[in-house]
Amino acid sequence: MRNLTMMTDLYQLTMMNGYFTEGKAEQTAVFDVFFRQKDTMNYAVFAGLEQAIDYIENLHFSSDDIEYLRSLGIFCDGFLDYLKNFKFTGEMYSVREGDVVYPQEPIVVVKAPLIEAQLIETALLNIVSHQTLIATKSARIVDAARGKSVVEFGLRRAQGPDAGIYGARAAVIGGCNGTSNVLTGQMFDIPVKGTHSHSWVMSFDSELDAFRAFAEVYPDTCLLLVDTYDTVQGIKNAITVFNEIKAKGHKPMGVRLDSGDLAYLSKLARKMLDDAGFADAVVFASGDIDEYLLESLNNQGAMIDVYGVGTKLITSEDSPSLGGVYKLSAIEQNGKLMPRMKISDSIVKVTNPGFKTLYRLYDKASGMAIADLIALKDEKIGKPLVLTHETERWKTTTLQDYDVRCMLHKIFVNGQNVYDKPTLGEIVEFAKTEKSKFWDEYKRIDNPHIYKVNISDKLYELKQSILKKHKSK
Amino acid sequence: MRNLTMMTDLYQLTMMNGYFTEGKAEQTAVFDVFFRQKDTMNYAVFAGLEQAIDYIENLHFSSDDIEYLRSLGIFCDGFLDYLKNFKFTGEMYSVREGDVVYPQEPIVVVKAPLIEAQLIETALLNIVSHQTLIATKSARIVDAARGKSVVEFGLRRAQGPDAGIYGARAAVIGGCNGTSNVLTGQMFDIPVKGTHSHSWVMSFDSELDAFRAFAEVYPDTCLLLVDTYDTVQGIKNAITVFNEIKAKGHKPMGVRLDSGDLAYLSKLARKMLDDAGFADAVVFASGDIDEYLLESLNNQGAMIDVYGVGTKLITSEDSPSLGGVYKLSAIEQNGKLMPRMKISDSIVKVTNPGFKTLYRLYDKASGMAIADLIALKDEKIGKPLVLTHETERWKTTTLQDYDVRCMLHKIFVNGQNVYDKPTLGEIVEFAKTEKSKFWDEYKRIDNPHIYKVNISDKLYELKQSILKKHKSK
Repeated sequence: MRNLTMMTDLYQLTMMNGYFTEGKAEQTAVFDVFFRQKDTMNYAVFAGLEQAIDYIENLHFSSDDIEYLRSLGIFCDGFLDYLKNFKFTGEMYSVREGDVVYPQEPIVVVKAPLIEAQLIETALLNIVSHQTLIATKSARIVDAARGKSVVEFGLRRAQGPDAGIYGARAAVIGGCNGTSNVLTGQMFDIPVKGTHSHSWVMSFDSELDAFRAFAEVYPDTCLLLVDTYDTVQGIKNAITVFNEIKAKGHKPMGVRLDSGDLAYLSKLARKMLDDAGFADAVVFASGDIDEYLLESLNNQGAMIDVYGVGTKLITSEDSPSLGGVYKLSAIEQNGKLMPRMKISDSIVKVTNPGFKTLYRLYDKASGMAIADLIALKDEKIGKPLVLTHETERWKTTTLQDYDVRCMLHKIFVNGQNVYDKPTLGEIVEFAKTEKSKFWDEYKRIDNPHIYKVNISDKLYELKQSILKKHKSK
Repeated sequence: MRNLTMMTDLYQLTMMNGYFTEGKAEQTAVFDVFFRQKDTMNYAVFAGLEQAIDYIENLHFSSDDIEYLRSLGIFCDGFLDYLKNFKFTGEMYSVREGDVVYPQEPIVVVKAPLIEAQLIETALLNIVSHQTLIATKSARIVDAARGKSVVEFGLRRAQGPDAGIYGARAAVIGGCNGTSNVLTGQMFDIPVKGTHSHSWVMSFDSELDAFRAFAEVYPDTCLLLVDTYDTVQGIKNAITVFNEIKAKGHKPMGVRLDSGDLAYLSKLARKMLDDAGFADAVVFASGDIDEYLLESLNNQGAMIDVYGVGTKLITSEDSPSLGGVYKLSAIEQNGKLMPRMKISDSIVKVTNPGFKTLYRLYDKASGMAIADLIALKDEKIGKPLVLTHETERWKTTTLQDYDVRCMLHKIFVNGQNVYDKPTLGEIVEFAKTEKSKFWDEYKRIDNPHIYKVNISDKLYELKQSILKKHKSK
């Protein structure tokens, strides 16, 4: 396990040293992780908790780390001594990996001594924002693939090793059926996929020689990449080889297209394979695929069975950051948690104060999700429940017959991990089930119906009272 | 050092097993790393070589790795045995980190047994593409900052830990003066920067209390973030505290703006600080900054001394992948290297065949770069030198008095690293010097003058002869 303790912003350490010096280190603080609205993301799929837990469990400063910090000349000796035994002693709550989440919702809540809660901000945001971003992009692409299989192929285009390794994990949480990334497959027991590239073909004297050699080595998993020189000729050569292996009792797997007009070429490949008696052979397509291209391919009636999705998935190309933030929502004063909020002229940057939790409300009859509710931690959710729009206060919804699920789970208590980490298979299953509880209209790419995320009346009143007090100053 | 040997695409291993089975494993192959034209990148700054070298030196399959591969049921025992002693035995050539590079140029060339060269494709592309992407984005941002200091602040928004750690390294190669990332600072001896966040302010009863406490702890590095509640009031509070620390003989550092209209607020902050007698205090600005916003801030006469640049730099937001590729350019047959090329209807995907090298030509009088030349490895570059446009063959330039630099350096010979790795400081210095040898017109963001990258006449003839042979089939 890599020690990422030093992977933090300098200002976290600068503030920690300040809290330490000012006698504020042990004040209990509550911080919320959430993200803001993005057009490229009508819903998100939460991921990265397992790595965030590993990070927190592994927190410690080595003596080299402390000497490095001492060399910066800005930290007092008492603080540097304190760091020698630093560990996380607080509480953490989080939604489950694979859960569907929305902007402004507290998806991770940390309640810990201020000095500890401050340190972990950077790495926590880095880890969960990245994986949530990729799981979300994957979910959107899988939606657009309309039940066809999607495989993650982006490692070479990922932003460094971790982006490839954990990006592939997140892609599987989002709904991909496998990855080309062998290390991720090994680490998380995920199916790994892939056959050959152009260089295989180019290393032989002819494409036909290359295909024959590949079929000889892999007679039962023979998927041939047909666009090294000329796609149509490539399909013909593949069919020649498929006939040869069929004669030996094997069943060819199919062809892969990696360039050119995928709509046209997929229909052509399908027809050529069908006409040759290989109706079971698949057409696999890769090359700059994302949810928008998939919608276009769907509209054109492309005949593609499996998609290999690389660059645009692994980098979330049209929106390569989630914009996750970590904001102080309460701080202990005289033994009592006092709510805090960030106030800004920019309305979207005004935060929700207080120690909060998050509920999802489901229609009892259909089982479908109706709305989410951000509430204060100690509130009771009764029946009937009146949900009021935060700014349009005349807009209310009264729920009678609903099921409620508290989405935040206890992860750390007194610095101890109390969460029974699910396997990746369990996460994938949960993600699939939970996503199915949202009507397609919420998930569509263009002009989606907006899912209701409300704040409770108590939270509303708290927020308004703090804002009024601020204005009156 | 992490072992990233398994961080590869499955198809690399599938092909390796195929080469092994077909008796092709030891055929010498030449692969080129290059990238294709992007509108968001008129030039690129190469980075990531040090980590690529580490990766290659550290290549080995553990017995767990081999057992995992065995469990996939697609590899023969002989191949799995071979992997036990796998190491890189070939040659590698690369441009230096910090060098300015252009599309289609071979920036890394691998000449090795086919089976070895195939494995390293994925990780090599991942590492150098990522760092080159971020170094390039950083260079563009630094250009647009017109001599003002730029600090990398993106760790929390990076695509996972490595993207933050090595992204910060690359940002410094691109010209950033420091990073907020403590781990990167420690690993590469880079200046680390940062003071406090909103949570520092929110953890106190009032902003003024928070500023006073910060000034008490850091009287000589007192840079105050002024936008937690209300920016104008925040600047007033900062000035109050600056007066207090000035009275005690300290010099305040300045204020930081993190939201709102940076053009307006920076001018206001500058005036308020000047009027209060703090003409030396800096205005530091952060918040969604990239080269385009900087151009706008420049045009509006914003009064900003230092920029903190986060999300849009660390993710290269408008273009989050370099699109690096690794293409077979030659393969040994009967003891002789035979050129190979990828042929495609898409002209941009047609590759340059043969074992090649890369030259930069400079004007002897001014020292400025004139053009780059991709040539076959064994060619002599004479004087005068006639450069001919690859498609517009009537367009020629004759160079008489020029200096030439071979840009590709020997990195590995017989699998041994022969390259004396420069320090990051040396790389930064080289990057700065080399960048200064390009006229600003090549580097401007809008409608840049296109720098000439030519292929030699010999390479042109080779390419045409292969294309003609292909068409005649």
